[in-house]
Amino acid sequence: MTLLSGALKINSGELVDTIHQTAEKFGAKNRWGPEPTQTGVRRLALSDYDKEVKDWFIQQAKSLGCKVIVDEVGNIFATFPGKNRDAKPTGMGSHLDTQPTGGRYDGIFGVLSGLQVLRTLKANDYVPNYPITLVDWCNEEGARFPMSLMSSSVWAGISTKEHVYGLKDVYDNKTTVLEELNRIGYKGSVESSHVANPLNCHFEIHIEQGPILEMMGKRIGVLTSAQAFRWLDVTFKGMPQHTGTTPLEYRRDALLATAKVITGINEIGKKHHGVASVGMMSLSPNVVNVIPGEVSFVVDIRHHTDEGLHKIYTDVRALIDEITLNKAGNGIPLEVEIGDPYPIPTTVFHTDLVDLIEECAYSVVGEENTHRMVSGAGHDSCATGSVIPTAMIFVPSKNGISHNPEEYTKPDELEAGFRVLLETILRYDQERVE
Amino acid sequence: MTLLSGALKINSGELVDTIHQTAEKFGAKNRWGPEPTQTGVRRLALSDYDKEVKDWFIQQAKSLGCKVIVDEVGNIFATFPGKNRDAKPTGMGSHLDTQPTGGRYDGIFGVLSGLQVLRTLKANDYVPNYPITLVDWCNEEGARFPMSLMSSSVWAGISTKEHVYGLKDVYDNKTTVLEELNRIGYKGSVESSHVANPLNCHFEIHIEQGPILEMMGKRIGVLTSAQAFRWLDVTFKGMPQHTGTTPLEYRRDALLATAKVITGINEIGKKHHGVASVGMMSLSPNVVNVIPGEVSFVVDIRHHTDEGLHKIYTDVRALIDEITLNKAGNGIPLEVEIGDPYPIPTTVFHTDLVDLIEECAYSVVGEENTHRMVSGAGHDSCATGSVIPTAMIFVPSKNGISHNPEEYTKPDELEAGFRVLLETILRYDQERVE
Repeated sequence: MTLLSGALKINSGELVDTIHQTAEKFGAKNRWGPEPTQTGVRRLALSDYDKEVKDWFIQQAKSLGCKVIVDEVGNIFATFPGKNRDAKPTGMGSHLDTQPTGGRYDGIFGVLSGLQVLRTLKANDYVPNYPITLVDWCNEEGARFPMSLMSSSVWAGISTKEHVYGLKDVYDNKTTVLEELNRIGYKGSVESSHVANPLNCHFEIHIEQGPILEMMGKRIGVLTSAQAFRWLDVTFKGMPQHTGTTPLEYRRDALLATAKVITGINEIGKKHHGVASVGMMSLSPNVVNVIPGEVSFVVDIRHHTDEGLHKIYTDVRALIDEITLNKAGNGIPLEVEIGDPYPIPTTVFHTDLVDLIEECAYSVVGEENTHRMVSGAGHDSCATGSVIPTAMIFVPSKNGISHNPEEYTKPDELEAGFRVLLETILRYDQERVE
Repeated sequence: MTLLSGALKINSGELVDTIHQTAEKFGAKNRWGPEPTQTGVRRLALSDYDKEVKDWFIQQAKSLGCKVIVDEVGNIFATFPGKNRDAKPTGMGSHLDTQPTGGRYDGIFGVLSGLQVLRTLKANDYVPNYPITLVDWCNEEGARFPMSLMSSSVWAGISTKEHVYGLKDVYDNKTTVLEELNRIGYKGSVESSHVANPLNCHFEIHIEQGPILEMMGKRIGVLTSAQAFRWLDVTFKGMPQHTGTTPLEYRRDALLATAKVITGINEIGKKHHGVASVGMMSLSPNVVNVIPGEVSFVVDIRHHTDEGLHKIYTDVRALIDEITLNKAGNGIPLEVEIGDPYPIPTTVFHTDLVDLIEECAYSVVGEENTHRMVSGAGHDSCATGSVIPTAMIFVPSKNGISHNPEEYTKPDELEAGFRVLLETILRYDQERVE
């Protein structure tokens, strides 16, 4: 198949340059090597750096002739005009926020690849048939405000603005999303809704964040689905007592109970061929010679099927109940509080769009370098996928490392991914006409 | 046996009033009931509150005619004059610092009981045969600067001033002991040494911090020894990776390894009839959907014999080695760093002093209310006991609760303990002459 993008002049290297320039300007952190580009990025959602990169993004989009709107939960929609001005735009997007110890690619690569698509159209005076909207979804990571896919979920109607406005900064347990949206000037006036502010579809390109493409020697992953996941907020309450004077049989040790959960869920994850682990924990009073009286932690469970997730979930709940009642503190029951606010089911991507991406990938990098796969992580496309046709493209991650300063994808792999996205957007725009 | 203290006028209630007044002035925190006295105390070593209570203590001691000296690691020695002016003083002491979530009694009760002994002598114009020195040992808790019995250990020659000067505040990982001693004006000029600044013996009264006296219906514990303990600082280093995209078999999960240690050492503690647990932990990056790449924690092991402690220690080290090499991260080795800076062996208290306390307890509260026992916790007397004759008195702790705002001992139990201490000091002073 002939490449539609083959007719366009492409500014090779501009995308990679933009990735590094914005990383350096907006939150470069955690050096891991001697090269200027060898740092990670710390750009927490709704922080000053997030505001600055949003400002920069809007300025870039406007310079390309885009109309920019910000919705009431901080999502930015930059729309490049098409011939058919009143049609729903073709959508693409990802997120510009990072984890506290994040790298330069996760999310950012997706938004900047979209920007590179628009830059390429503009540079070639290419007018698409339909408008093309590039979205920076707000707070995908859920690292500072603990809800991943936060604002894409509101747009998709999975969550509400009232819920997310009240979320509190995990670092001070005080500052809310609403306060920070107001502070940085990104509480827009447009309703956050896929009905009021629609897209015709959503394409997202992202780094894999896992080791599969690299291990298989593939260049492009074509995603058929994203695995289901669920987060359980658990707090065990025991009794803070002196470690020296309290015999083991009289203890109500909230950390021992937590440790039993962490080891137990690992076995449960294995048993059901999914994953289950804990990444975040806080303990009180957190003193050497005091038994922890209270421990809060978040259980992260994932499976490529909803049924598998449910099996893991059921076993994890049973384990927590058993530990709460019988096992922790060596026989003395603890108190427990459990919240599981937003289970995300398996997202099955739209068959037509998956096939379209695959065709484009075959054309750009060859069938032998293309691999159909399931996303291990959640992405904004999991939210959009619940309401509009959605599909995703992956590029390899070196050593499968992500959410880490050393996250890395080679320039030619980034470029190849961008070209698949560009071709996909052009063909989608073409096929809507034909 | 006739009570020597029976001839003295004793101001009943003054001790308990002083406990509550100083709690309220210097760090009252964490209300747990409606009464004015129902809060805990947060008075971290070398904090502003610690400085203020030290200032108050010195002023009190001076008003009783004591000579006060401060040594180079913040220990305060208040010496009440005796007839035999040049003899080594009879010593008593404890500490005025608390845990971050401490109560009103731990340590404080010991220093203020000593103060009450001196107040009673002064009020009765009683001149002892030998000087009597009351000591406020600096940073017994090791909560803010992570070394328990810090300055009594320097005085006893177990540790050095150079070592403790460099200890860092666990809350900011920056501020040192030396900086804080200088800041609050408690880096004294006197050498911290049991040779240069000697005591003839050391008596300490303390709350039990465990449930035994209460469960047995006893009022006074006569300590024969204090159990050995050892703290191991452990850091596991794995790899922070995305929880969704990294299959379990490729993970190097430092928190999973830690959880296996916590559950494993609990079994080891049980097996050897001692205790082993973790109270303090920090994890990085501590984010919901990132596998913890680094976890640091402190293992606290204790046993009433040195042999038992060594068995626990050996098993704990073997467990950590096994988890590091084979088990954590599902088969992939982690890196580990282990430090165990200051093992404290079993302290066997001085037989003559133990017998003396027991006689005094029989006289004050009756044999039926007195119980010989082993201390579960470490105390400044464990440091002094390594160089001079030392013994301890316990009073009951309600529900065995300590290192907790709800720590409580009834006024009449506190008063009975003080009277045993007073009688002990008087008889010791008498018996040195006879």
